[in-house]
Amino acid sequence: MEPYDDREARWLSSDELAAWRAVTLLVARLPAALDQQLQRDSYLSVVEYHVLVGLAEAPDRRIRMSVLAALAGLELSRLSHLVKRLERRGLVYREPDPANGRYTLAVLTDEGARCLAAAAPGHVAEVRRLVVDVLAPEDLTAFGAIATTLNERLDECGEDQP
Amino acid sequence: MEPYDDREARWLSSDELAAWRAVTLLVARLPAALDQQLQRDSYLSVVEYHVLVGLAEAPDRRIRMSVLAALAGLELSRLSHLVKRLERRGLVYREPDPANGRYTLAVLTDEGARCLAAAAPGHVAEVRRLVVDVLAPEDLTAFGAIATTLNERLDECGEDQP
Repeated sequence: MEPYDDREARWLSSDELAAWRAVTLLVARLPAALDQQLQRDSYLSVVEYHVLVGLAEAPDRRIRMSVLAALAGLELSRLSHLVKRLERRGLVYREPDPANGRYTLAVLTDEGARCLAAAAPGHVAEVRRLVVDVLAPEDLTAFGAIATTLNERLDECGEDQP
Repeated sequence: MEPYDDREARWLSSDELAAWRAVTLLVARLPAALDQQLQRDSYLSVVEYHVLVGLAEAPDRRIRMSVLAALAGLELSRLSHLVKRLERRGLVYREPDPANGRYTLAVLTDEGARCLAAAAPGHVAEVRRLVVDVLAPEDLTAFGAIATTLNERLDECGEDQP
């Protein structure tokens, strides 16, 4: 890093700004674009889909809410609202963690597992159509590596922790 | 693309899945992380910030709502709600487009320009801290190029159009 006077803003260079603007636009658009197909075909948002995936992959289809929040990249309060909606639809239920009653487990129901299985092929096709099949394999790998670096940075900074 | 039977899902390979999961996690977390600083210091969300930037850069600080929606990567209905909130705070107002009364212009007020100018240094510092200064310059460039490719794909697919 160059030395700088922290009373002065270190504005982005024109190259940095161009890259950053493309990224922010993508980050704004991509979830909405993926939501369109999922909502239309499966009445799920992308975030709800990822929560169901997190549950489906957990041992015995149950997981602590705080762990699920980290997996889905959500604050715990936002996850709680989302899980309430899924609970009303019979896709998930919550129960106290038998190992420690101060924690709450979210549990995927059979209906939730069916809903996810029905939603998955269409969602994966859309992920291919809008992202995976659009990029050369090495660019997808690079994209994943960059995202991993930035996720680690967010972990370090304690951002987005419940 | 390989030929495939469209009755069968083309699941992601393990490499594709790993990359895609890192990307979806980042896309979920990054706006929330950037929101934390902006909300705390400037009472703005990242999306509101980008809307103010779009207005500040428009000639005479005014722009058609539909053009602003595309710039900010928002559906028009979502932009309308957001602009109403900014209007209540005196940062923006709307008026019919004198060139064509069927269109609505959003206009940045002096107070809106001051709010943006006050918010910008802190936001840019956070963008550096969480993204720009974390990546090697060539990785930031690659990230921008990948995002541009995917934004063009979304344009082609007519996704996210108002």
